[in-house]
Amino acid sequence: MPRISIIPSFELDSGAVLEDVSIGFERWGELNDAGTNAIVIGHSLTSSPNAKSWWSSCVGPGKALDTDKYFVVCANVIGSPYGSISPLSINPSTGKTYGATLPQATVRDTVRLHKLLLDSLGVKKIAFAIGGSMGGMQALQWALYGPDYIHGFVPIAVGAHHSPWCIGWSEAQRQAIYADPNWKNGTYAPNAPPMDGLAVARMMAMVSYRSFSSFDSRFGRTRHPSGSFNAETWIQHHGQQLVNRFDPACYVYLTHLMDTHDMAQGGKSLHATLSSITQPALVVGIRSDVLYPLEEQKELCDALPNAELAIMEGPHGHDTFLIDQDELNDIVLQWRCQHIDGLIDSQVSDEVNCIV
Amino acid sequence: MPRISIIPSFELDSGAVLEDVSIGFERWGELNDAGTNAIVIGHSLTSSPNAKSWWSSCVGPGKALDTDKYFVVCANVIGSPYGSISPLSINPSTGKTYGATLPQATVRDTVRLHKLLLDSLGVKKIAFAIGGSMGGMQALQWALYGPDYIHGFVPIAVGAHHSPWCIGWSEAQRQAIYADPNWKNGTYAPNAPPMDGLAVARMMAMVSYRSFSSFDSRFGRTRHPSGSFNAETWIQHHGQQLVNRFDPACYVYLTHLMDTHDMAQGGKSLHATLSSITQPALVVGIRSDVLYPLEEQKELCDALPNAELAIMEGPHGHDTFLIDQDELNDIVLQWRCQHIDGLIDSQVSDEVNCIV
Repeated sequence: MPRISIIPSFELDSGAVLEDVSIGFERWGELNDAGTNAIVIGHSLTSSPNAKSWWSSCVGPGKALDTDKYFVVCANVIGSPYGSISPLSINPSTGKTYGATLPQATVRDTVRLHKLLLDSLGVKKIAFAIGGSMGGMQALQWALYGPDYIHGFVPIAVGAHHSPWCIGWSEAQRQAIYADPNWKNGTYAPNAPPMDGLAVARMMAMVSYRSFSSFDSRFGRTRHPSGSFNAETWIQHHGQQLVNRFDPACYVYLTHLMDTHDMAQGGKSLHATLSSITQPALVVGIRSDVLYPLEEQKELCDALPNAELAIMEGPHGHDTFLIDQDELNDIVLQWRCQHIDGLIDSQVSDEVNCIV
Repeated sequence: MPRISIIPSFELDSGAVLEDVSIGFERWGELNDAGTNAIVIGHSLTSSPNAKSWWSSCVGPGKALDTDKYFVVCANVIGSPYGSISPLSINPSTGKTYGATLPQATVRDTVRLHKLLLDSLGVKKIAFAIGGSMGGMQALQWALYGPDYIHGFVPIAVGAHHSPWCIGWSEAQRQAIYADPNWKNGTYAPNAPPMDGLAVARMMAMVSYRSFSSFDSRFGRTRHPSGSFNAETWIQHHGQQLVNRFDPACYVYLTHLMDTHDMAQGGKSLHATLSSITQPALVVGIRSDVLYPLEEQKELCDALPNAELAIMEGPHGHDTFLIDQDELNDIVLQWRCQHIDGLIDSQVSDEVNCIV
């Protein structure tokens, strides 16, 4: 179970006000006296804040997200069922679960909420924010707090806004949930959630997270003893796995939240916003990513004044950032040593560690 | 309504025997006396045999599929609701619709059945077979009848077998139909089909048929008056459109049929089969195709002894062969003039037409 922090009241960008707002989070390492050695991890769509479990090669002593030298925090996004306020939470004004009535938050909202958490933990400056996919959206949003608050950021497998292509995939997945009669416009009973719809949404998503090549090398046209192709049984398995650990209304909510991702903010154009972000950035792209193709990261990198691009060549598609973790760890560690360690007011700089 | 031909009895590769087998088809132009000027069009997943409606730039007088000079035939695939035997047909042994009990046919079965139709129409030799996607699978299958029966073939946006990637997409779509309570294991009443599931399957498919670039240029992040993104309303529209003209059990059946596509046949390897096909082939690939990526057509072309590759550069993804029809028409017309027209025992060769 994650740690929980409660914010008494929080106003979303939409004007809706949430009361008794819980934030689930995990943290590792120690905050330095100056409060400046925090690394903030953004998690992806169905991940929990327990980043050490799903990014084990990247989080830990001596790793890119070094829990000996940094204070590493991962907070749960608004709408996710891992400790933060979500459709599964009780609405204090009704005494019932929100379901689909939880006011829709944006990526910006969730980062603003997480900032309150960091404030309460004593964080004065973020060393860098990092994340893949939805986590990358958060990393970009954190960067907008400016160089006085955040030294650098690492968006992975994400673009400057959620593309209509990804919105299309999101909507097809939501429609799978809406088509389940148990959905009942999001007012379903806690003991009768539309899990068949959620499973279908996940199956669709799992294919999109991989690639032609990864399916080809892994499954070919081999068959399961049942007679089905192994490519079929694999997606069925993943569909069923998610229903054991996730909720359909949360899934709908979070995919909408991802669709809000747009760095064109405050009346500024996308380019104007990005060109105002002067901190060092490491933009990581994946050549085989079908959902967030490499051209998005190239454009992001070109528009950011102080960014460098790293390309992961793995064949696994979007999920490469969760699969080829050792490679990602090396990439991020090298960048951190060059751009971050020297800036932190502590004994972070470790020459041995930084020879990568 | 398509024309209908009835075959009294037909044995599938599985050994199952179908009785009173209807074949829906359309034909244009006149068969020559020698019976050698037939062009056979294979249709794709949800298309009808009325190829003139969905390939209007390619089918007609003076076009690549020239109805003045050739006898152009498009027959409906086994399992499709446009005139051929399908889950909607009455099973003569029960007096009820087959639903999901219709024995599963393969791509090879459907081409063998269509050959009986061509025989009955007096066709002695096929000039060439052509088709995109599932139609391309049929074109490849036709080629196996050998050069004494078929002069050439044009597989478009397809590979030598159905890839595990495409099988994964197929299965996710089928699961959307299975998850609809109206599915009832394919035994649903004709007046209560699982149309919500079919709509979801179609929405998923429609995204996969396009591309990042086509969604980006067409929709951007623009919104519909309802507040939804236009990318969302577009896929919703297409989901609802299909339920007006298609059947869920047919959809399940045909996607399984596509999954059977494998040119490794008769105990031979894929390469052995392909290298035995000596007729001229035009393999058409689409650079933006997510489902059947260009590498598949390159491999196909390399493995076929007498093939040339044409690449469509359009941004529309898999659907490019249905969208950039003028370009496709030019490509196919040029190839036809070089490789086919001179071989046909008729006055087909028209120098003016062939200056392209």
